[in-house]
Amino acid sequence: MYRHIVNRPENAADEALEGLALTHPGVVSYDRDAGIVRRARPAREKVGLVSGGGSGHEPLHAGFVGTGMLDVAVPGALFASPTALQVHTGTVAADSGRGVVQIVKNYTGDVLNFRIAGELAQDDAIETEVVLVDDDLATGGGDEGGPGRRGTAAVLAVEKICGAAAEAGAGLAEVAALGRRVAGNARTLGLALRACTHPGQDEPAFALPEGEIELGVGIHGERGTGRIPYADADTLVTRLVDPLVADLALKRGAGVIAVVNGLGSTGPLELSIAARALHHRLNGLGITVARSLAGSYVTSLDMHGVSVTLLPADPDLLPLWDAPVRTPALTW
Amino acid sequence: MYRHIVNRPENAADEALEGLALTHPGVVSYDRDAGIVRRARPAREKVGLVSGGGSGHEPLHAGFVGTGMLDVAVPGALFASPTALQVHTGTVAADSGRGVVQIVKNYTGDVLNFRIAGELAQDDAIETEVVLVDDDLATGGGDEGGPGRRGTAAVLAVEKICGAAAEAGAGLAEVAALGRRVAGNARTLGLALRACTHPGQDEPAFALPEGEIELGVGIHGERGTGRIPYADADTLVTRLVDPLVADLALKRGAGVIAVVNGLGSTGPLELSIAARALHHRLNGLGITVARSLAGSYVTSLDMHGVSVTLLPADPDLLPLWDAPVRTPALTW
Repeated sequence: MYRHIVNRPENAADEALEGLALTHPGVVSYDRDAGIVRRARPAREKVGLVSGGGSGHEPLHAGFVGTGMLDVAVPGALFASPTALQVHTGTVAADSGRGVVQIVKNYTGDVLNFRIAGELAQDDAIETEVVLVDDDLATGGGDEGGPGRRGTAAVLAVEKICGAAAEAGAGLAEVAALGRRVAGNARTLGLALRACTHPGQDEPAFALPEGEIELGVGIHGERGTGRIPYADADTLVTRLVDPLVADLALKRGAGVIAVVNGLGSTGPLELSIAARALHHRLNGLGITVARSLAGSYVTSLDMHGVSVTLLPADPDLLPLWDAPVRTPALTW
Repeated sequence: MYRHIVNRPENAADEALEGLALTHPGVVSYDRDAGIVRRARPAREKVGLVSGGGSGHEPLHAGFVGTGMLDVAVPGALFASPTALQVHTGTVAADSGRGVVQIVKNYTGDVLNFRIAGELAQDDAIETEVVLVDDDLATGGGDEGGPGRRGTAAVLAVEKICGAAAEAGAGLAEVAALGRRVAGNARTLGLALRACTHPGQDEPAFALPEGEIELGVGIHGERGTGRIPYADADTLVTRLVDPLVADLALKRGAGVIAVVNGLGSTGPLELSIAARALHHRLNGLGITVARSLAGSYVTSLDMHGVSVTLLPADPDLLPLWDAPVRTPALTW
């Protein structure tokens, strides 16, 4: 039997939001009735930033609300899109007169509900722009006209960089264009040593044979693209880094922003070992790690695994990446 | 079979330190030969702060090196004390002319090696003071003359508050006295839903029957003080909070600094749910949570569990708690 620190499973997402707000009272506040998390002190006269999606990916998105990042997060139930009305409420709350950029991970429900919310906002005379995040390389081979790549951990980079630009006074079109560039250039690939187990359930979402791990996993408990033998950290991280480098056509001398992301129950010891492996592999390929992060940012409940996100470090992005940020889950 | 993201298990601690330094190059640097982690930009003319102990508790202590907290961390192998020579090197590196406070968790090896290092430092004309951290309530009932309470997550509060005082220019005796007061007033209690598994091993350090969890666990894979039935988050957190409140004799109207600490593989969702439970329980007892944290700070490899640390929020401590800090694992 698998156990979690949880009360009633159906309350897990809501209680976690309440706990986050209680822990960071000066940074975020949780409006349960409206279904949104917003800055404790709303920003004025800047482009607003709203993001959201299913819960179960904590600290995403509520953990990224605060100065230099999001204005509002709109959380759904576990692995379920927020409603269009919720997103509309969040969009209105994020507006301070200069329009709102909606950052949306590429899942059918999210895309639909953010689109409806955008139309509703138009009725309120709030201009909106959508930035679609579709970075998951494991879903890159889809058919023309299919759902396309999933949105995963690159959403962190989109939120950080758009957040910095908005804070610096950039206009709606400029913030949206930046976000689209980051989303278009970032790629992510993940693997799992153990699938997630939904709160209250006994068994993981999928079983793995001894000696194998799952490559190309998403963040909703779905299977990945294939199984590979369990191996040491350096080998596993290479299996993530190399396809990303190939897809992004990164050459010797290139620089990247890299995120080593724990998928839920991956501990600090393992994340630092994975981060070391990432640096060594990229350096070995002649690629400079201009900036990097290692932590649990975009999780899949308690999945044991890690994803790597690479984003080419264009010189104009670095000051935005480095700009101050103060949120529950990212601060510098 | 249990699997980790790890290379050779005997290199895990070292590789994690290297990964931490690669991820935070502007904050810390890792000197492998000396066996220490120090600030990337050493402080000048302030009381130095050094701490250390066995690895396997990441991000402790190296993750707390930086402005406003430690000058130097001295990591041993997994669950093993650093050597006296290592601690001596770290003490010398931490000194900028105003003496060094050594923050030591109460374990026989650590206490011995820090004491020898203090004597060696005296030969170098470096004044040292020791702050012993012994906050683990589960080991509170020991015999007179026994080893006393173990040092666990309160070390974070000691390092934060001493670090702020040292940064503000306080003298050696003053920083040490503050640290002793914090250590003397803080208490911690933990529980585990699953014991830790050493890297490279197949089985957890101890087994738990279905339906039971371990109360009063330490951070070295040792058994706790007893087993209690698995229960919901609110109940489990109450089993931690209530004995702490009783031991500290906290009355209605009291205020505390509280730390909800993940023990390794406890994910963000669970930690926020535990934080909510903590706030509700304390508020229900009429106790104000003046400040709180929820994260994985003092871990026990990949143990699945949580500890709670309470420290009475004396008014003079709050500005020190709130003072800016910039380390890999704690920044505000």
